[in-house]
Amino acid sequence: MRIREIHLTPVAFRDPPLLNAMGVHEPWALRTVVEVVTDEGVSGLGETYGDLSHLERLRAAATELTGASVHAHHDLYARVAASVGANVVTDQHGLTGAGSNQKTVDAVFSPFEVACLDIRGKAAGLRVADLLGGPVRDSVPYSAYLFYKWAGHPGAEEDRFGAALDPEGIVAQARLFIEEYGFGSIKLKGGVLPPDQEAEAVFALRDAFPGLPLRIDPNAAWTPATSMRIGKALDGVLEYLEDPAPDIEGMAEVAAEVPMPLATNMCVVTHDHLPPAIARRAIGVLLTDHHYWGGLLRSTQVAALCATFGLELSMHSNSHLGISLAAMTHLASATPNITHACDTHTPWQDGQDVIAPGALRFVDGAVPVPDGPGLGIELDRDALAVMHEQYLSCGIRRRDDTAYMRRFDPEFTPKRAHW
Amino acid sequence: MRIREIHLTPVAFRDPPLLNAMGVHEPWALRTVVEVVTDEGVSGLGETYGDLSHLERLRAAATELTGASVHAHHDLYARVAASVGANVVTDQHGLTGAGSNQKTVDAVFSPFEVACLDIRGKAAGLRVADLLGGPVRDSVPYSAYLFYKWAGHPGAEEDRFGAALDPEGIVAQARLFIEEYGFGSIKLKGGVLPPDQEAEAVFALRDAFPGLPLRIDPNAAWTPATSMRIGKALDGVLEYLEDPAPDIEGMAEVAAEVPMPLATNMCVVTHDHLPPAIARRAIGVLLTDHHYWGGLLRSTQVAALCATFGLELSMHSNSHLGISLAAMTHLASATPNITHACDTHTPWQDGQDVIAPGALRFVDGAVPVPDGPGLGIELDRDALAVMHEQYLSCGIRRRDDTAYMRRFDPEFTPKRAHW
Ligand SMILES: [Mg+2]
Ligand SMILES: [Mg+2]
Repeated sequence: MRIREIHLTPVAFRDPPLLNAMGVHEPWALRTVVEVVTDEGVSGLGETYGDLSHLERLRAAATELTGASVHAHHDLYARVAASVGANVVTDQHGLTGAGSNQKTVDAVFSPFEVACLDIRGKAAGLRVADLLGGPVRDSVPYSAYLFYKWAGHPGAEEDRFGAALDPEGIVAQARLFIEEYGFGSIKLKGGVLPPDQEAEAVFALRDAFPGLPLRIDPNAAWTPATSMRIGKALDGVLEYLEDPAPDIEGMAEVAAEVPMPLATNMCVVTHDHLPPAIARRAIGVLLTDHHYWGGLLRSTQVAALCATFGLELSMHSNSHLGISLAAMTHLASATPNITHACDTHTPWQDGQDVIAPGALRFVDGAVPVPDGPGLGIELDRDALAVMHEQYLSCGIRRRDDTAYMRRFDPEFTPKRAHW
Repeated sequence: MRIREIHLTPVAFRDPPLLNAMGVHEPWALRTVVEVVTDEGVSGLGETYGDLSHLERLRAAATELTGASVHAHHDLYARVAASVGANVVTDQHGLTGAGSNQKTVDAVFSPFEVACLDIRGKAAGLRVADLLGGPVRDSVPYSAYLFYKWAGHPGAEEDRFGAALDPEGIVAQARLFIEEYGFGSIKLKGGVLPPDQEAEAVFALRDAFPGLPLRIDPNAAWTPATSMRIGKALDGVLEYLEDPAPDIEGMAEVAAEVPMPLATNMCVVTHDHLPPAIARRAIGVLLTDHHYWGGLLRSTQVAALCATFGLELSMHSNSHLGISLAAMTHLASATPNITHACDTHTPWQDGQDVIAPGALRFVDGAVPVPDGPGLGIELDRDALAVMHEQYLSCGIRRRDDTAYMRRFDPEFTPKRAHW
């Protein structure tokens, strides 16, 4: 079964003003919806970043992929690598670590691979999870992913989530998410306020939700010394500490001193980073993300590598829609050693989606693996058209949290080993 | 699609008196043929060791596997692990490194996994190679696998291969194999004669077949000091030096001093060995073997790990039949970083097989990936019945090269770091 055509649709959906070490989320989040159609008329879905430079690479890859077999994983990968070329490095918003040519190829390849797995599952009457080794869990737990945030975008109305700029605001946000989704663990995006204030928010979460696993992710905004101090202060409170300080070397320094494992989606983001990170014992938990680890199959291979080296696994998330959530759920369900709740931005999407309702739902903070063949989801073409219109009219062509923040705070600088 | 029944058939086939560091091959080699049949009547084939203790574990696992989905890789593995239990360690003939519980589980799991992939391929109209990522090469090169050998088993007639106990005999054997199969690289099983005599045989091969990649595998019969001396003497002659000395530590010592990469199927034979071997830079080439690395999918994961850590890959072989050769060929065809010719004992099998002729053939030393769905082979039930009769009558229930050698040389001791 061969690829006859590929449709790429950039979309935009409303995003609240979520704060992070790079700045603040813009009013519109961008994604690209990938639809692969075979010569037998079976189609499959993938979802990836919406930045224009990435979209252009997707277009080049799509040309290269036409005519290829949906089963020929290695051939598909080689075609994408050829279309990207050597020495092409994309910076992905400063929040997912350094770019590299390998990471660029993996990111371009990913949505096509997901779409091909969707097709292969549909053709065989199997779920994507079945193609990845079969589910070891029927539903995948996700964490409540909390952000410091403004009440609304400047000049716009307050959003329904309201402001969260202190421990009380964070606890209220957690309460809302847990009420609406049933989450059983909590992650706080940090790197926004001085570290002791963020630690106070973690203590407040601990007091408000005793027993729930907690994490904080300052996106490398802290120095190693601060990371050690805060890490020690949070002993017994965190299940893991995510990317407190930059780089493998900095993380290794911290890891040697703090009591909890360090997690990362910044210092280990491609294969080249694994040998030095393992040699330096820099991390205890790898946060995989099929969007930049080259799709689902390659993510299962990284997971197997982590099992061999005694690394735990969890999952990273950027702003995304339902196609990505479905793919993440199939992958996590079929990955035995993903033992922590995965991250998702789903609550911030607040009902907006490109897929037809019903296939994905949260039950006690977990998403049951969709029953249908492939990813088990269907495109909502009306919703896709609306979101594409939003893309065309929103004016944003590249995510830039820093530039947006500087509109309101011209002195703002991204926080890297800042505190 | 679920497993309805599993048939296990131990078989024996004639094996020449091939010499190695443990002793000499007995007149009969044992294998077990595994046939998995689903509730939809689709059947798949696997092949594994024939030792009685292994056969008993296969039987226990088969009971556990009945009713499982052929797609549920992780579930199948968990069932096998449960049936094997903890702390069960099998010694596999002294030539494939130390046993461990993990290795035992992986070895028991392997033929069932291969059979399930055969079924999944047949059900989907796909080759097993397609289920493993698709072929990156249409045919898989194998090496001429030379052995020192007696002219025939003591008391029996001389076999058609004749004696090979000196460089001339080895060169003649290579010439026969290359003439009959077209091999483009040569491996010499060593650990039989004093190292300098074996090095002489390698030089004789170099002179007789200039330009052909050469290897020697003494099965850890040499000390690290001897390994260094011989390794340096063979600079520019060997593509790799296989298991000259025992254990990761010994191999690391040698690796630091010799000019060529070291390969192993002895000091790294399960996941636990990878971290220390990588940390110590003990090896440059991993010789995978799906029979003890837990089947085909897990072998592709180990291959991905090797790519990440810059290890090259080749493939190990024990005496086997066509089901194993088909599985090895599908796996190697779908593993991009298997860049050396794989080992096979096929010539020593000398036409004996349990599969119908025609599916597998050698063209210029390489086996084209079979075209048909699944493994692309069919069981020859008459041949299977004959080989099972041979199993029943041959009297051998466990391979023991040392005991057989001691019948003729009571003072013989296995050679481990002996020279
Ligand atoms: Mg993070
Ligand atoms: Mg060997």
